[in-house]
Amino acid sequence: MSNSVDFQSWVHARQTRIESTLQSVLPAAEIAPQRLHQAMRYAVLGGGKRVRPLLAFSAGELAQADTGRVAIAGAAVELVHAYSLVHDDLPCMDDDVLRRGKPTCHVEYDEAAALLVGDALQSLAFQLMAEYRLADDAATQLEMVKLLAAAAGSRGMAGGQAIDLEATGKTLSVPELEFMHIHKTGALIRAAVLLGVRCGASMNEKELAQLDHFAKCIGLAFQVVDDVLDAEASTATLGKTAGKDAQRNKPTYVSALGVAQSKSFAEELRQKALRALDGFGERGLRLRQLADFIVLREF
Amino acid sequence: MSNSVDFQSWVHARQTRIESTLQSVLPAAEIAPQRLHQAMRYAVLGGGKRVRPLLAFSAGELAQADTGRVAIAGAAVELVHAYSLVHDDLPCMDDDVLRRGKPTCHVEYDEAAALLVGDALQSLAFQLMAEYRLADDAATQLEMVKLLAAAAGSRGMAGGQAIDLEATGKTLSVPELEFMHIHKTGALIRAAVLLGVRCGASMNEKELAQLDHFAKCIGLAFQVVDDVLDAEASTATLGKTAGKDAQRNKPTYVSALGVAQSKSFAEELRQKALRALDGFGERGLRLRQLADFIVLREF
Repeated sequence: MSNSVDFQSWVHARQTRIESTLQSVLPAAEIAPQRLHQAMRYAVLGGGKRVRPLLAFSAGELAQADTGRVAIAGAAVELVHAYSLVHDDLPCMDDDVLRRGKPTCHVEYDEAAALLVGDALQSLAFQLMAEYRLADDAATQLEMVKLLAAAAGSRGMAGGQAIDLEATGKTLSVPELEFMHIHKTGALIRAAVLLGVRCGASMNEKELAQLDHFAKCIGLAFQVVDDVLDAEASTATLGKTAGKDAQRNKPTYVSALGVAQSKSFAEELRQKALRALDGFGERGLRLRQLADFIVLREF
Repeated sequence: MSNSVDFQSWVHARQTRIESTLQSVLPAAEIAPQRLHQAMRYAVLGGGKRVRPLLAFSAGELAQADTGRVAIAGAAVELVHAYSLVHDDLPCMDDDVLRRGKPTCHVEYDEAAALLVGDALQSLAFQLMAEYRLADDAATQLEMVKLLAAAAGSRGMAGGQAIDLEATGKTLSVPELEFMHIHKTGALIRAAVLLGVRCGASMNEKELAQLDHFAKCIGLAFQVVDDVLDAEASTATLGKTAGKDAQRNKPTYVSALGVAQSKSFAEELRQKALRALDGFGERGLRLRQLADFIVLREF
C-alpha cells in the first residue's frame, strides 16, 4: 500500500471515529429541550474536515496515547470550533447563510436558537474535558482543561474574532495579520495538537516545544491556505460562501501579499512545520502527512 | 451586634471580596484585544447583588472551606451568570437596553462585541476552574469543572433559556414553569452552593443531599420572587426594565398563580429550604440568612 493510500484510509478511519464520538457525546434529539438538542446536532454532525481532531489523533499517535482518550479531547476541540462557526455566521458577525454545504444554524433554526447552540456547545466541550478520563493523573487533566479554555477565550480564539471584527475595512501589515490569525485559528489548532500529546506519555520540554512550534506553523499555514481558497475556489467546492473576504473588505494574506506570494508563504510554513518534526523520526509520520494535507488541500 | 447587622456586614465584605476577585481575574483593559477586554469588564464589574457567589461563600463556610478557593469558584459561577445576561439581553433574545442600571453590553458596545464578550466570559470561567487550586485533590476539582459545565449547558442554564424562548406566548402549568426554572436559574444557583461545599471538607452523601435540596428550593424561590418583582417593582429599583414579562407575554409564576399566591409559594419554598438545613445547626447560619435575603429582597 502506498503512503498516500495508507494516509487516506487513516484519515477516513479517524473521521469516522470522531463522527461517532460526537454522535454519542451530543445529547440525543429526543432529550428535552428537544429543539436545542436537534440544533446542536445539526450544527456539529455530518460535515467538516475535522482537521483539529485529525491533528489531535496524529499528535496522540506520536505520544502513544490511547485512541479513546484522544477521541474525547478531539471532540471537545471540535465542539469549540463548531460553536465558533455558529456564532461567526450570525447576522451581527459575518451574516452567512451557507456552512458545510448546508444552511447555517440561524437560517435553519433562528438567531436565538443559534446563539444558545453555540453557548451550549462550549459548555459541552468543557464537560467532556472533565467527565472522561483523559490523562493518567487528574492534575495533568486539569492542565488540559486550562489549555483548552485559554485557547478558546479572549486571549485565544474569541480574542482573534474580536481583532478580526475591528480589522474589517482596514489594511493590516503582515505581522498584524499574523497576530490576528495566531489568535483566531492558531490557538485552537495548537490546542488540538497539544491536547493530543497530553493524552499520551509525558514528554520532555524540548519535544513539547518542537511540537508547539509545529502547531504554530501549521495553524498559520491553515489560515493562509484558507485565504487563498476563499479567493480562488468556488462556493460549491468549499461548502461555504467563496469570495466573501474581498466582498467584506477583510484584510487577508491574499490582500496583503497577493495569491502567488501567499502560496509560497504557505509552503514556507509547511517546510518549517516539517523541520520541527525532524527529531521524532518515524513517530512524526502522521503529523507530516497532515501538514501536507492541510497546506495542499483544495477545499 | 444584632444578627441582622452582622449579616449585612458579612454580605458587604463578601461582595467586596468577589468584586476584587473578578477585578483581578478579568484581563486588564490594556491587554489586546483591548476593546473586548474593556467590554468584558463593563459587563461583569460594578453591579449585581452577587447572589451566586454569596451562596458559594455561605456554603463554603458551612464546609470550612478556604475563602480564597471559594472566591475563585464563586467568581467562575458569576462569570457564567454574567455571560448569560449579556447574551440574554441581545436583540435576538430579550432585546433589553438596561441592566444593573447601565446600558446593556450590546448598547454600550455593539452586538458582535456583546456576543464575543459572552463567549469569552464562559471560557474564562472554565479557565479559572482549572487554573487555581480549588480542592485538596485534582480529581475532586475535575468533578467541580464537570458540575459547572453541566449546570451551564443544554441540560442546565442554556437549556432553560431555550425552554423559556419556546414558552413565550404560551400558558404553562405550574409543573412546566418549575421545569423551566429549575434549568434556567436553578441549575447555576445549585452549582454555586455545591461548588462552595466542594471547596471545603468532604461531606457524607446525606449532608450533600440536604444541601442540594436547599439549593433547589432556594433557586426556585429566587425565580418566583424575580417574577413578583418584575410585576410589582419599578425599573429604578430593579436596575433593569420592569414589567417586561407581561409585556412580552412570558409565562411566569405571577401569570400562573397571581401575585398573592406567588408570594406564599416563595415563602413555602423558603421554609422548605430552611428545614433542609436543620441537621447543620449553627453551621447553617449564613445559608439560612441568605435564604431570607433572597426571598425577602425587594430588588
